[in-house]
Amino acid sequence: MSLDKNWFTEANDNGVAFSLRIKERLHQEKTQYQQIEIFDTTDFGKLMVIDGCTMVSSRDNFIYHEMMSHPALFSHPNPKQILIIGGGDCGTLKEVLKHSGVKAALQVEIDERVTRLSEKYFPELCTSNKDARAEFYFGDGIRWVKEAATGTYDLIIVDSTDPVGPAKGLFTENFYRDCFSALGEEGILVQQSESPLLHTDLIKSMRGAMTVVGFSKCHTLCFPQCIYPSGWWSATMAMKSKDSDFDWDKRAKKMSFKTSYYAADVHRGALALPPFLQNALLD
Amino acid sequence: MSLDKNWFTEANDNGVAFSLRIKERLHQEKTQYQQIEIFDTTDFGKLMVIDGCTMVSSRDNFIYHEMMSHPALFSHPNPKQILIIGGGDCGTLKEVLKHSGVKAALQVEIDERVTRLSEKYFPELCTSNKDARAEFYFGDGIRWVKEAATGTYDLIIVDSTDPVGPAKGLFTENFYRDCFSALGEEGILVQQSESPLLHTDLIKSMRGAMTVVGFSKCHTLCFPQCIYPSGWWSATMAMKSKDSDFDWDKRAKKMSFKTSYYAADVHRGALALPPFLQNALLD
Repeated sequence: MSLDKNWFTEANDNGVAFSLRIKERLHQEKTQYQQIEIFDTTDFGKLMVIDGCTMVSSRDNFIYHEMMSHPALFSHPNPKQILIIGGGDCGTLKEVLKHSGVKAALQVEIDERVTRLSEKYFPELCTSNKDARAEFYFGDGIRWVKEAATGTYDLIIVDSTDPVGPAKGLFTENFYRDCFSALGEEGILVQQSESPLLHTDLIKSMRGAMTVVGFSKCHTLCFPQCIYPSGWWSATMAMKSKDSDFDWDKRAKKMSFKTSYYAADVHRGALALPPFLQNALLD
Repeated sequence: MSLDKNWFTEANDNGVAFSLRIKERLHQEKTQYQQIEIFDTTDFGKLMVIDGCTMVSSRDNFIYHEMMSHPALFSHPNPKQILIIGGGDCGTLKEVLKHSGVKAALQVEIDERVTRLSEKYFPELCTSNKDARAEFYFGDGIRWVKEAATGTYDLIIVDSTDPVGPAKGLFTENFYRDCFSALGEEGILVQQSESPLLHTDLIKSMRGAMTVVGFSKCHTLCFPQCIYPSGWWSATMAMKSKDSDFDWDKRAKKMSFKTSYYAADVHRGALALPPFLQNALLD
């Protein structure tokens, strides 16, 4: 069948396309950096689209935001200072601030309009924006990390768009080197790393570059994400210390807040790479 | 954007649509039961479509076929007699026959044309069709199970289309009662149970009906499946004995054959239900 104008479609170079049925387009604007659209969908709540790519929907964002934050936070023995690069919808920030040990979480998003539109159309993701520990800087994350003092952060979360346009520089060895320097001794970098099925080569090259700049080990976690290409997504963690995560599960099992997707055994499952992916990433 | 005629699209009632870019339609026919089409895609190899719904692609079928077979086979202490209902593309049969302890695997597919077209367009799924342990019957699986002698099978795998059309009767209490009777004391029924995100109510009602007819316990396993709605899919196992699977992982770790998606720790991860799904299924 062919889809009529009541659908928003993202088609991509990998020969797959995903569509959501829409009621109406609520907003569109061209910012200094990108084209942003907000749709009201029939079954997935609100949908934010940037440069034609689905970014966040009300219905399924919980999986992505929980998996971008909690595995890394529990893998660090005592994460206090958190830096989020991108993450303009504030969903990752909200999850980070569920951890009572966090002293400060700074969100460095290049495009302030993403956050302003999220406040309007995804208020449920912005409920912690007024938390005293939340800090916002709207500007270039690559430069921010480059200029950060050595050892400032316990955790850097790169919650960006795909590696094209303004996010391209976030997938480079130079950026990882700056992250390594900005992180403390037990610091962890975690970055969204696209689809395990479609972007295996990208994940491999990210892990390679992370290792080259000095990280001791990498873990890639897989999880479903309906609105992203192939419906299957990943986050890759790079750790400075070999040992910081050795008892992550003890910390995760003592979790004192509610989640919808994350749990200690879901985290363990996400770390279990299927053989085809192990072969591709670890050879 | 809108998609041109170079894409095949499956849109469904849940307000999501999935498309694959195609090179050409290689075949179409209307059988006694359904409309079958075969496409050559640009990035996913061959694609079989039944009544407008994607069934199997060359690229990602390994996940589904491995997860429909190995978890259940390793959960039974000694599975010898296997019945597959549906499964006409023969991919599940191929995985089942990797287990050397299996004495016979009977595939009961209602539409012989599905198997004949799979032999032609998906020969890699049909490499075990001439195995001496493989048996084929083309006819009604519901009736086959109803008429089966008590305790005939160790495992019944229901590898069917969605619960509409010819497959509707495979999602009913009456069918589960007949499966219960046709299974041996440690028998297991495993059935594809749609999307954990989109079809939570269906999974819950399946588990309820399986329990009503006498199964001791149910486990739902989740896994990615790019070409199915939401990109996230599930299989639900119903076990007659409470104890048959207590050491599945010991058996799985001794696995003597190669897989691409399945592994013992992937199996354990698939059993780890996220909190939202636990709350929906187990309350």
